Amino acid sequence: MTKLQRIIRQIKPLDAEAMHLAQARQDTLTKPQGSLGRLEELSIQVTGIQGKARPVIESKVIITMAADHGVTEEGVSLYPQEVTAQMVYNFLRGGAGINVLARHVGARVVVVDMGVASELLPHPGLVVKKIGYGTRNMARGPAMEREEALRALEAGIEVVEEELAKGMDILGIGDMGIGNTTTSSAIVAAITGAPVAKVTGRGTGVDDERLRHKIEVIERALEVNQPDPDDAVDVLTKVGGFEIGGLAGAILGAAAHQVPVALDGFIAGAAGLIAIRLAPQAREYLIAAHRSVEIGHSIMLEHMGLKPLLDLDLRLGEGTGAALGISLVEAAVKILNEMATFTEAGVSEALE
Amino acid sequence: MTKLQRIIRQIKPLDAEAMHLAQARQDTLTKPQGSLGRLEELSIQVTGIQGKARPVIESKVIITMAADHGVTEEGVSLYPQEVTAQMVYNFLRGGAGINVLARHVGARVVVVDMGVASELLPHPGLVVKKIGYGTRNMARGPAMEREEALRALEAGIEVVEEELAKGMDILGIGDMGIGNTTTSSAIVAAITGAPVAKVTGRGTGVDDERLRHKIEVIERALEVNQPDPDDAVDVLTKVGGFEIGGLAGAILGAAAHQVPVALDGFIAGAAGLIAIRLAPQAREYLIAAHRSVEIGHSIMLEHMGLKPLLDLDLRLGEGTGAALGISLVEAAVKILNEMATFTEAGVSEALE
Repeated sequence: MTKLQRIIRQIKPLDAEAMHLAQARQDTLTKPQGSLGRLEELSIQVTGIQGKARPVIESKVIITMAADHGVTEEGVSLYPQEVTAQMVYNFLRGGAGINVLARHVGARVVVVDMGVASELLPHPGLVVKKIGYGTRNMARGPAMEREEALRALEAGIEVVEEELAKGMDILGIGDMGIGNTTTSSAIVAAITGAPVAKVTGRGTGVDDERLRHKIEVIERALEVNQPDPDDAVDVLTKVGGFEIGGLAGAILGAAAHQVPVALDGFIAGAAGLIAIRLAPQAREYLIAAHRSVEIGHSIMLEHMGLKPLLDLDLRLGEGTGAALGISLVEAAVKILNEMATFTEAGVSEALE
Repeated sequence: MTKLQRIIRQIKPLDAEAMHLAQARQDTLTKPQGSLGRLEELSIQVTGIQGKARPVIESKVIITMAADHGVTEEGVSLYPQEVTAQMVYNFLRGGAGINVLARHVGARVVVVDMGVASELLPHPGLVVKKIGYGTRNMARGPAMEREEALRALEAGIEVVEEELAKGMDILGIGDMGIGNTTTSSAIVAAITGAPVAKVTGRGTGVDDERLRHKIEVIERALEVNQPDPDDAVDVLTKVGGFEIGGLAGAILGAAAHQVPVALDGFIAGAAGLIAIRLAPQAREYLIAAHRSVEIGHSIMLEHMGLKPLLDLDLRLGEGTGAALGISLVEAAVKILNEMATFTEAGVSEALE
C-alpha cells in the first residue's frame, strides 16, 4: 500500500459521541441556545474532528506552498513568472500579507517549495519538496507526469507529518504561484463539469481581453488533455500544479491525523476538490475560511458543500483568508471551553 | 451649549489627506492592487478616522451597557428580567461570551450599569451611570423622560471620555438588557418608517405566538407614543432604553475623539440609528462588525449605509460580534503598516 492509500484509509468519520457532548455543553452556556450561530457549529465540528469533548486550538499552522506553472507562457497572468520566487523570499523575510495575518492570529507559516521554476537559495524557514522546475504548459499537453502528481500528494502528507511533530491543532493552507488561478479554473471545470467561462476569473487582475484569452487557453488545455473527472490524480496530472497537489496531500494528511483544515480561497479550493475526490470522508475536516472574489470559488464551495466564514472580497491567496478563518475557529473553541454555564454563573434559564 | 451639543460639533469629516496617503501605500504593497478587498478599505477608513497615515489599533475597548426595560411586563421575552443583573455579574466574573471573545482579540471590557432594575453590588469593574431602575413600559406611555434620555446620551459620552484616558484606539459597543430587541425594533420602525413586522425578530428565541404578541406590543407602543422620527431624542425617550441611549452617546463621544466604532448587532445598531440622526457625520466612524440574525438588522444597516464584515448567524449581543470585528480591523491596519512594498521586497510589479 502506498503512503497515499494508507493515509486515505486512516481518515475516519467525525467522533459523534464527542460532538454530542459538545452540543450538550453549548446548550448549558450562559447565552440563548444557538445564539452564537456558526461559532457553535464550528466548535462542534472541531470537537468531532479532534475527538475530544474539549477541543484545543493552540498550535496554529499555515502551510503556504509555492510552484510555477508552464501555462504562464500563454500570457494568462499580469505578473511575470519570477514573482513566484520573489514572493517566496518575501514570505521568508516576513513581509508578505500571509506573514502579517499569521502573526496577527498567532500562527506559524511553513513555506514550501513544491516546484518553483528556479533554484531557490537555502533558508532555514524553507521546506524543499521540489517536484520539478514548474509544470509544463497544459495548453499543449499534460502539466506533469502521473508519478509527479503522486509525489506531490505524498510530499504534502510529509510536510504535515513533519509539522505535526512540532504541534499542529489546526492547519490553514495557502498558495503562491503565478498562473495558478488558470490551473485551478481548469481543475474545477474538469471535476465539476462547469463551463470554463463560469469558473474563470481575473486572477491577479487581468482585463477583459486577457480574461477571454485565459478562458480560451483553459478550454484548449481541457480539450488537449481530456482529464478524467473520476480520477483526481489524472486531473492533477493533466491540468494541475505541484503546489495544488501538495496542498491536496496536506489536506489528506491533516484529516488522517484528526486536524481541522481551514481552506484559503480558489487555489486551496482546487486542492480541496482533489482531496475530496480521492477521499470523500475528508470533506468533514474542511472549513471554508472565506469566499474569494474569483468567480469559480462559489461553484467550488457549493460542490464541496462548504459555506464560507468570511466574505471580504479577498483574492490574494497565500493563506491570508485561512489565517483569518483560523482565528474564528479558535474563538469558537474558546466559547465552548471558557464560557460559564447557567449553573456556574447563577443565571436563570429561559422560561418554559 | 450642552455637552451633547459640544460633542456633536466636534465630529469632523474624515481626514482625506491621510486617506489618500494610505491608499497610495496600499498600492505599493506586495500584492495585486485591491486583492485584500475589504481589509484595504477598512485600513483606509481607520486612517481617515484617526487622521494618521499610519493608524494604530493597540488599545481595544468593548463597552457593554446594561439596562432593563419596562416593556418586559408585556411578556415579550423568553427570559425573566432578573437575567439582566445576573448577566452583569457574569460579565464582571469573566464568564460570558463577551469576556471570552474580548480576551481572544485582546480587548478590555467595560461594563456599565445604565439602568438595571435592581441595585447591583459594587465591583471595581462596574461603571455605574444608572439613569433609573429600568424604563417604564412603553406600551403604556413614554419609556423615560426626555431629560433622562439626554442624561443617558451624556453618560455614554462620559464613559468614552473616561476610557480614552486609559487608551482607546478602537471602540466596540455591545448591550445587555432583557427586552431590548423589542425596544430596538420600535426604534428602527420609528426612525426608518419600516413596518413593525418587518423589523421584529425572535430576540432570544420566542416562538411564533410570542413573536406575534411582540409585534402587537411594539405597534401599540408606537401608537401610544407617536415618536417624532426627526427628533432622535424623542424616539429614545418614548420607545428607547437607557443602555441604547448610553451606546448612542458612546458612539458620538468616540467619533468626536476620532475613534472608530465597531457596532455589534441589533441593539448597537439601534444606538447607531439614534447617533446618526443626531449627527449624520458620525456615520463615517462606524464599522458594522456583523449581520445579526434579527430580521430588522439588515434594514438598519441599509438605512445607515453600512455593510457588515461578518455574517455568522450571531444573535447574542453583549458586543460579541463587535469583538470579532475589531480583530479584523486590527488585521487591516497591520496589513497597511507591516507589509513590505514591492521595492523593499525586490518583487517585480504587474506587467503593463
